[in-house]
Amino acid sequence: MKIIRSIAEMQQIALSAKRDSQSIGFVPTMGYLHEGHQQLLRAGREENHILVMSIFVNPLQFGPNEDFDRYPRDEEHDFEVAKQEQVDYVFIPSVEEMYPTPMSLTLTMQKRVDVLCGRSREGHFDGVVTVLTKLFHIVLPERAYFGLKDAQQFAVVDALVQDFNFPIELRPISTVRETSGLAKSSRNVYLSSEEKEEAQYIYKALQQGQALIQNGQKTKSLIINEVIQFIKTHTRGKIDYVDLLTYPTLREIEEVNQRVIIAVAVYFEKARLIDNLILEENGELTYSS
Amino acid sequence: MKIIRSIAEMQQIALSAKRDSQSIGFVPTMGYLHEGHQQLLRAGREENHILVMSIFVNPLQFGPNEDFDRYPRDEEHDFEVAKQEQVDYVFIPSVEEMYPTPMSLTLTMQKRVDVLCGRSREGHFDGVVTVLTKLFHIVLPERAYFGLKDAQQFAVVDALVQDFNFPIELRPISTVRETSGLAKSSRNVYLSSEEKEEAQYIYKALQQGQALIQNGQKTKSLIINEVIQFIKTHTRGKIDYVDLLTYPTLREIEEVNQRVIIAVAVYFEKARLIDNLILEENGELTYSS
Repeated sequence: MKIIRSIAEMQQIALSAKRDSQSIGFVPTMGYLHEGHQQLLRAGREENHILVMSIFVNPLQFGPNEDFDRYPRDEEHDFEVAKQEQVDYVFIPSVEEMYPTPMSLTLTMQKRVDVLCGRSREGHFDGVVTVLTKLFHIVLPERAYFGLKDAQQFAVVDALVQDFNFPIELRPISTVRETSGLAKSSRNVYLSSEEKEEAQYIYKALQQGQALIQNGQKTKSLIINEVIQFIKTHTRGKIDYVDLLTYPTLREIEEVNQRVIIAVAVYFEKARLIDNLILEENGELTYSS
Repeated sequence: MKIIRSIAEMQQIALSAKRDSQSIGFVPTMGYLHEGHQQLLRAGREENHILVMSIFVNPLQFGPNEDFDRYPRDEEHDFEVAKQEQVDYVFIPSVEEMYPTPMSLTLTMQKRVDVLCGRSREGHFDGVVTVLTKLFHIVLPERAYFGLKDAQQFAVVDALVQDFNFPIELRPISTVRETSGLAKSSRNVYLSSEEKEEAQYIYKALQQGQALIQNGQKTKSLIINEVIQFIKTHTRGKIDYVDLLTYPTLREIEEVNQRVIIAVAVYFEKARLIDNLILEENGELTYSS
């Protein structure tokens, strides 16, 4: 495994891999790897000759009151995980390497962002698409891997790739869950043991919503209410949002008449948890794990 | 020579060329080819295994009061010229192919645009960088060719490639001139024979400015005034602008202390002509033809 900190070096490696007809799989991360990342790396390892993982905590996607400086970092641990998952190249540039001068251009998301988590994080996804555009040009992957736990991020990257015709296949990877159904997250460590017990009902609430759709219920407000009531009944968490939107376009609808996402965010004492299900019109899972 | 109208087909050709280690040279155009384009094609032909030319009149770069609908088109003539210059692929997509749905993202130039021609064409260069980002991803060139007659466009594309780390080498191609020095342009046909006589003094005026710099003059205002006076003395054209800026950053300066551009735009009866010189601090041409 090779650790690369220079853009020019990474781009040269990618270009020369292309000349040798080697396919490149790419997993962009902000480091501090957990089991979710490992799933992405395993999928990338299986489908490509070369597997590249980037570690870059991108200042552009943090708001002024967000935790860029405090974002957890652990290079040594990340390198260990990467080695274990047979990553070929870890690309880990500095902020100065990625943004040597203020940019002359800005990339702005006009759709898919004023809902769900994007509503409270203005400019966040602009930062995401900006850094991904750069990383895609540096790493030149055939396939890029993203987790569906952050389904809005996947929808945003999907728009980026479509709008600008990137020659990249996006690979959505299903959310990894505990046996209880709780979506795995580095933030789960902040849950008390009672909260962790309760948190499994977030997924179960989503499944209640899914069951309604499978039984023919089409009305958004009724489905949403069921999910909200279920979470309120079984947890002490405070609901940030429960929403049902088209996917991946993330438009408002009143009736389920196409692929949709049911997404929730719930605050516990020291952690905000998110989860979602992406469903076909008949309620079947779009991406089965 | 093959004519391609589908994005998917063009991208497949490009990807398979890459797998065969074939370098791709790219000349993006809006068609209605003239001798300036031919210079670009010749340079591209010389340096690459495969030469791709695109023809696409991009609605995004025309303002609401500009001439998108009236922009001249002549496919048959363009194909003839392309054949003559040994183009391998002409990529000529429809507007619907390039913009099947309204875009979810916007790309905006924040620098290098509020001067020269950009000042009066709000949003023009946003449209240019948007379509070029798409075309670069579809054609996947190693090298892309742009004329220096539109030096601001070259500066804008330079910013695009730098900011987003495109793996593309930009090739600036010097302005082609008549024996008189007049820069070649499709608009020269709109000049009366007296105007054409006079128009050669635009280039001579730029050379006057250059001579001042070569002789040690550093003060922008004095150099500009010389150019303005020279044009006024020798032509009946109406000056739109004469400016001296850093190049390619296009920042205002008072003193010539780095690479600069002297750029002019002059209205004649039925044509607006532009021309420029890009000069080192000592007055020498940066790009010699």
